[in-house]
Amino acid sequence: MNDIKAGSRSKSATVSARISPVGGLDILSRNEVARLRGASDSGLHALLRRCALAVLTSGNISDDPRAILEHYPDFDIQVLQQDRGIKIELSHAPAQAFVDGQIIRGINELLVAVVRDIVYVSTQLEQIGLDLDGSAGLTQGVFEILRNARILKPHIDPNLVVCWGGHSISRDEYDYTKLVGYQLGLRGLDICTGCGPGAMKGPMKGATIAHAKQRRRNNRYIGITEPGIIAAESPNPIVNHLVIMPDIEKRLEAFVRMGHGILVFPGGVGTAEEILYLLGILLHPDNSSIPFPLIFTGPRESAAYFEQIDRFLRLSLGDEVAQRYQIIVDDPAAVARAMIKGIDRVRHNRLDTKDAFFFNWALQIPLEFQLPFRPTHEAMRALQIHHDRPRHELAADLRRAFSGIVAGNVKEEGVQAIEQHGPFDIDGDADIMRALDKLLQAFVEQHRMKLPGGTAYVPCYRVVTA
Amino acid sequence: MNDIKAGSRSKSATVSARISPVGGLDILSRNEVARLRGASDSGLHALLRRCALAVLTSGNISDDPRAILEHYPDFDIQVLQQDRGIKIELSHAPAQAFVDGQIIRGINELLVAVVRDIVYVSTQLEQIGLDLDGSAGLTQGVFEILRNARILKPHIDPNLVVCWGGHSISRDEYDYTKLVGYQLGLRGLDICTGCGPGAMKGPMKGATIAHAKQRRRNNRYIGITEPGIIAAESPNPIVNHLVIMPDIEKRLEAFVRMGHGILVFPGGVGTAEEILYLLGILLHPDNSSIPFPLIFTGPRESAAYFEQIDRFLRLSLGDEVAQRYQIIVDDPAAVARAMIKGIDRVRHNRLDTKDAFFFNWALQIPLEFQLPFRPTHEAMRALQIHHDRPRHELAADLRRAFSGIVAGNVKEEGVQAIEQHGPFDIDGDADIMRALDKLLQAFVEQHRMKLPGGTAYVPCYRVVTA
Amino acid sequence: MNDIKAGSRSKSATVSARISPVGGLDILSRNEVARLRGASDSGLHALLRRCALAVLTSGNISDDPRAILEHYPDFDIQVLQQDRGIKIELSHAPAQAFVDGQIIRGINELLVAVVRDIVYVSTQLEQIGLDLDGSAGLTQGVFEILRNARILKPHIDPNLVVCWGGHSISRDEYDYTKLVGYQLGLRGLDICTGCGPGAMKGPMKGATIAHAKQRRRNNRYIGITEPGIIAAESPNPIVNHLVIMPDIEKRLEAFVRMGHGILVFPGGVGTAEEILYLLGILLHPDNSSIPFPLIFTGPRESAAYFEQIDRFLRLSLGDEVAQRYQIIVDDPAAVARAMIKGIDRVRHNRLDTKDAFFFNWALQIPLEFQLPFRPTHEAMRALQIHHDRPRHELAADLRRAFSGIVAGNVKEEGVQAIEQHGPFDIDGDADIMRALDKLLQAFVEQHRMKLPGGTAYVPCYRVVTA
Amino acid sequence: MNDIKAGSRSKSATVSARISPVGGLDILSRNEVARLRGASDSGLHALLRRCALAVLTSGNISDDPRAILEHYPDFDIQVLQQDRGIKIELSHAPAQAFVDGQIIRGINELLVAVVRDIVYVSTQLEQIGLDLDGSAGLTQGVFEILRNARILKPHIDPNLVVCWGGHSISRDEYDYTKLVGYQLGLRGLDICTGCGPGAMKGPMKGATIAHAKQRRRNNRYIGITEPGIIAAESPNPIVNHLVIMPDIEKRLEAFVRMGHGILVFPGGVGTAEEILYLLGILLHPDNSSIPFPLIFTGPRESAAYFEQIDRFLRLSLGDEVAQRYQIIVDDPAAVARAMIKGIDRVRHNRLDTKDAFFFNWALQIPLEFQLPFRPTHEAMRALQIHHDRPRHELAADLRRAFSGIVAGNVKEEGVQAIEQHGPFDIDGDADIMRALDKLLQAFVEQHRMKLPGGTAYVPCYRVVTA
Repeated sequence: MNDIKAGSRSKSATVSARISPVGGLDILSRNEVARLRGASDSGLHALLRRCALAVLTSGNISDDPRAILEHYPDFDIQVLQQDRGIKIELSHAPAQAFVDGQIIRGINELLVAVVRDIVYVSTQLEQIGLDLDGSAGLTQGVFEILRNARILKPHIDPNLVVCWGGHSISRDEYDYTKLVGYQLGLRGLDICTGCGPGAMKGPMKGATIAHAKQRRRNNRYIGITEPGIIAAESPNPIVNHLVIMPDIEKRLEAFVRMGHGILVFPGGVGTAEEILYLLGILLHPDNSSIPFPLIFTGPRESAAYFEQIDRFLRLSLGDEVAQRYQIIVDDPAAVARAMIKGIDRVRHNRLDTKDAFFFNWALQIPLEFQLPFRPTHEAMRALQIHHDRPRHELAADLRRAFSGIVAGNVKEEGVQAIEQHGPFDIDGDADIMRALDKLLQAFVEQHRMKLPGGTAYVPCYRVVTA
Repeated sequence: MNDIKAGSRSKSATVSARISPVGGLDILSRNEVARLRGASDSGLHALLRRCALAVLTSGNISDDPRAILEHYPDFDIQVLQQDRGIKIELSHAPAQAFVDGQIIRGINELLVAVVRDIVYVSTQLEQIGLDLDGSAGLTQGVFEILRNARILKPHIDPNLVVCWGGHSISRDEYDYTKLVGYQLGLRGLDICTGCGPGAMKGPMKGATIAHAKQRRRNNRYIGITEPGIIAAESPNPIVNHLVIMPDIEKRLEAFVRMGHGILVFPGGVGTAEEILYLLGILLHPDNSSIPFPLIFTGPRESAAYFEQIDRFLRLSLGDEVAQRYQIIVDDPAAVARAMIKGIDRVRHNRLDTKDAFFFNWALQIPLEFQLPFRPTHEAMRALQIHHDRPRHELAADLRRAFSGIVAGNVKEEGVQAIEQHGPFDIDGDADIMRALDKLLQAFVEQHRMKLPGGTAYVPCYRVVTA
Repeated sequence: MNDIKAGSRSKSATVSARISPVGGLDILSRNEVARLRGASDSGLHALLRRCALAVLTSGNISDDPRAILEHYPDFDIQVLQQDRGIKIELSHAPAQAFVDGQIIRGINELLVAVVRDIVYVSTQLEQIGLDLDGSAGLTQGVFEILRNARILKPHIDPNLVVCWGGHSISRDEYDYTKLVGYQLGLRGLDICTGCGPGAMKGPMKGATIAHAKQRRRNNRYIGITEPGIIAAESPNPIVNHLVIMPDIEKRLEAFVRMGHGILVFPGGVGTAEEILYLLGILLHPDNSSIPFPLIFTGPRESAAYFEQIDRFLRLSLGDEVAQRYQIIVDDPAAVARAMIKGIDRVRHNRLDTKDAFFFNWALQIPLEFQLPFRPTHEAMRALQIHHDRPRHELAADLRRAFSGIVAGNVKEEGVQAIEQHGPFDIDGDADIMRALDKLLQAFVEQHRMKLPGGTAYVPCYRVVTA
Repeated sequence: MNDIKAGSRSKSATVSARISPVGGLDILSRNEVARLRGASDSGLHALLRRCALAVLTSGNISDDPRAILEHYPDFDIQVLQQDRGIKIELSHAPAQAFVDGQIIRGINELLVAVVRDIVYVSTQLEQIGLDLDGSAGLTQGVFEILRNARILKPHIDPNLVVCWGGHSISRDEYDYTKLVGYQLGLRGLDICTGCGPGAMKGPMKGATIAHAKQRRRNNRYIGITEPGIIAAESPNPIVNHLVIMPDIEKRLEAFVRMGHGILVFPGGVGTAEEILYLLGILLHPDNSSIPFPLIFTGPRESAAYFEQIDRFLRLSLGDEVAQRYQIIVDDPAAVARAMIKGIDRVRHNRLDTKDAFFFNWALQIPLEFQLPFRPTHEAMRALQIHHDRPRHELAADLRRAFSGIVAGNVKEEGVQAIEQHGPFDIDGDADIMRALDKLLQAFVEQHRMKLPGGTAYVPCYRVVTA
């Protein structure tokens, strides 16, 4: 499998090895191999190196992606074309990816996925220029990347559960995600997550044991990530299908188009944002007849998290919003049964509408959910947080407001902008804005949102009227 | 897979279902099906019912096998011949074996193994009458049962690690067995145990996760049990190859002939007896050149257990005995590496001697280790616990003495015999007998041997001189 | 795969090689390996050598089995137990079984079948002594041999067509069997024959091309033979499942219990005997409700063969016998469609009666069809060829009379007996005996029965009255 | 598999069915499905209909592709997106593609290949615009189409033999191609041809039987065709990998880059042109050190064909050209052994140069071999058929001259051009031109080139001097 030379100079233990890629990286053209080379000025090599390192440090937990690069300053990866196909040459790679000098096969597969997706996006997709074609073009791009990754499987009944939730959750919450994964796995469901630790790993681990008991093979533990986050949430090697989408919006779209149902575990502000993203789509009038099981669940100790979110959603978007989700507290088997039931409705709907099982073409995702939102003062000023707006538009703006306020509180760039220009002006109804404040305050109290320097929460905006 | 009728009358929740057996139970003759039927007076049906129930309550922990039968008084199993093969009809079976009315596939497979082995031993093996032919005949019988179970695999390099240890161990010890299993699994080793909980389950669970990371399929989690113990140590459904040997001695022989190395985790008196069984065989002069990796290991907290055993073995059998085993404390990766190294020696030895990888034909197992020992006063009086005996014979008698003394302290039959006829007379050297006493006392203190009614340990024998 | 030493001394080109058996010969015990050894006086080695040589000369056509042994006087075969399993050592083996020194894999598999069946019958079956138990015991023996050969497959819908017919037929007839095999193969049917040349090979070859076009894998080309005939009708390597039954009667029983329908192509006297065997069974009152598709077919040029047989059957057994078979001339697709239709009835019957798909347990085969018939003058005198007998009994006696008369005309032993003791006395109705004579005469004219020295046909019996 | 409605109106028997594509057509995007639809004006649907019809009449022999379309005037094909993937709806399709209403699976797979390649070339490749990039770009395009068809397999040792030769050859020649295919198949070689009848089908049929005897699965019977020829040489269903290249030059390049050796059987003028194409490339100085086994072979009766070609090649290109090929007459096993030997050299060369096994990147194919040649009077006038030119350039011009002269004799367009503008002027050395004439005359006599109306051969050019 690989030839090893011991590496010792660098701070962390390293291994250098030439490995034979497994499972999927069939063949590259000479041209593609050349573009991945370090010497090229395409920037591709730097991207490859960064993503590869994330995969090789799989299991590490760090909120500072740069830290990893600093631990392995001499790390390099080269892709070589050889007689029987491709070889991947690793220099000074993290020793933890190896067992007695042999690379762990699951990590080998993840490396292959990294190379595959980087090559595809850069040599095929970008040349086609699909990104420029508006909403349909962006969806087509998501489809092409997933198809090239051979993750879209025909002839399989709907069975893919996307699990969202925090990557740094409490032990109780983590154990609960394992139990839920176990119950999902017993029922033949596959798991798709953002592929990091915490709520992204627990369900896969539980499902692995259940799948073994059910003698289920061909299990899918799908991880969908993107270059900006892969280092912070490096994929667990249980992930056996990894896709690297080009950006966060395509990653979210991949989740909702591939998943047949979504489970949300407790998380932080990111999880709350994802909930607003999904509800914004589901509330769109064009999607009203499309079934989409959405379940919020956690252990008894975490019941408060979803109570608060539920309260906020009902207040801001109306009680009807609650028809789009179900909250189940502390009952893994009930969660699995409810998911099975919901997915059964999805199956019948796809049969009725002759739509594909493997990609939710019918779901309308407006362009505003596909494009990134940069929370500048100007952009925040343009939001309209009012009860009288169409609910899906209000949800979209709520998500943006939420995103901006979080940035203004915790992200370096956002905090500086507030210091420099003063608080954001947000045009919003007072009761909604108050509720949002309360929600954020609760997150701080529950340690789900960490303020810089441990300071107390102070709103970084003021409500204005148009 | 199965048709369900709800069962409710009995105390524990039950399910009645007709299931299609999977994975191995190809076909039975009409005659074999008839013999399994309840109406027949062959006793086979009772045996089948008992073993099937154990498999269906997999995961339950109970030291009282009869309790299970009492919980499911109406349980029955019938084997039917049908168009596409065999069906198994379960009435009032434990609900825990099912998920939403479907039997867990792993349990289905274990049921198949139960039927297969009971049929084979009763219709094929007993008619051949192999049991009567002395030591070689008994070994042949062990071979035939394992071959019929299709557990002997040619063309596989030696990689089977047998794990022994207690079924009711501490949480720390259990977690440690998982970590060791994980390290074994990362290195491509398969696991064989007695297939109950505790040290029999932990290594399999750890290996399952590691095998998933290594994308290893065709993993073998072999459980070897026997009718007398299957109810108390019901197989975990991770076990994907189950064999039911006819008695405890054939079970032990199956372990040592199939395993390429043996790991011993902390356990109770049973584990100590198994150690004496194995060392008795390995000390036989005919086996002196046969490599057989034997490692004792546990977490730091349990170091004392093996220290005491080591001290006792050296005192009674001489320091040289320690060349046959290795003690590794609290280092799962080191255990796995040592096992790999030992198995490599096994591999080379088999190549050199042109012996099979899948069955250790060369190992000499004297008849006295193949026949059961009943600890009557007379049998105990016949033992010879003296320093000047050949070490393998002394080890054999030590094992018997140990077994008898344990019976005299904790087993109903043994305790009564002592009450009735007074203590055993044992012809032994004083220092060895004292060391044995000390070992047992330590076991009591560590809660590894439970005395009836929680009484203090009192020796149930006296030393006599021939 | 194999190590080669060139062999040159013997008349025919030979190769010596040590080969690794493939596909099925899992493991043997030390005892079984020992029994196959040349030194042993069990006679097993001679049987093994003879059958192995037949398989290695696969494709040769010779009516004189002894000729083969004379061509390869130094041929020997030894079975060795080694680290990874079994090795087969061939000395001075026919070069035609090899391609550039490598044994053809299909022939390797057939060798494995030879070893497997010889070992099983001699070490397992004979020790159980099933043969002694009357009709049910004999059927059980047939079942056990087939089960051990893993030829009985559960979970497969009925699809096995047994093809009977001559091994030395005309080119037109041979080409026709290929076309029929092609049409059967297009429809997903598997083929079972006596595994020699001619009508035993053509259908398999045609089916191979059709199965390739249908991308069908896991095709079964089953050959059933016995030690007395394997040398004369050595298996074609397309055969991928070979079973060697101990004698001709068990071979015939295997055909009718495994096959879901039987096709008869033109043949010689042997084929006519097989027709009488099968009709004798199907006419048994106990079998009257069991569907069993039976089709006689050949090219236009061979229409006379089945016309004559049909005429004889109707005259001797009554017109109703014709309800049990169908004659289709020169229409391969119609044959395949009729077989599909017939097998569908078999399928429904097995479902209705809950009988196995893979073994026709329900068919009554009376003991007289399971025991060999030796055509002595005394045995021939005991036959009762009368219109007023139960038809199945009459059919049984007709088969015996037929068999005896053929022997009296063409077999060395039979011809001598006639020369010595005069013609057989047969107690039979004149019209039936005349019809039988006419049938035989037609066979002689069509070169389907070869008289010694090319003499004219003279009846070797006289009709007597009881 | 498919739902059937009987079709009866059209002249030839037809079937209408909705089929589930098998083996490779994973998923299409909504956009791709839309482009294939009949209503679209992209011309794609007409191309799809024509190629699909060729595949469905597989086995038909006709030199007039339009005839097929006329036999099935109502034939249509539609591709539908549905729940579990793609469906293909066929209306009034040729009945011969079906068995009892079910489409033959091999033909189903070929249909899938047609859809796949048409979609890929039209939606992916053309949008990338690779064709415009000169020689390297054209090679890249060939690579991308083959990769998308998943025909390039890494990890397989070189074993692919390309067979060229006539599609309408004599029975003797056809039988010979089967025998050669059988010997290739016995040695584990895979076959690649132009996928029509004759020399394109025989080797595959022979190899199929040999692969069955060798129990070889995953056999590759690759057919490479192009839209202009698929109707005339419709793929035999043994072909299990079909690729439709956009034009004849890419088809030829695919042969030489994928094949590890090339066998040429007797054929007509097309075969002679292919020989000139390949030798033109192999004689290029950059390719002098690249091993490329090239064998001309036929039965004894056809020896003259290759003698004449050999004589012509030596005269025009010098005796050294004969070092690039080997002529073997009437010895299938020798052909196979020579091919094995040649491919072994290819293997070592790829290992030495670290080049891919699955694609011959190193071979230099000049742009003039990649671009089509239209034989106008002007183009023919520009040729330089002189002994003193570099041999590879001379070979290229010889091929063009040959192609033009054939067109001027037999192709409608060419014959008309000669009638209108008089004979071509060719600037060539007299001895070469005479030899060319002689070769063509021999082809006419051997019925390998058919002149319109059966007229005698008259040169359609005159030799001029520059």
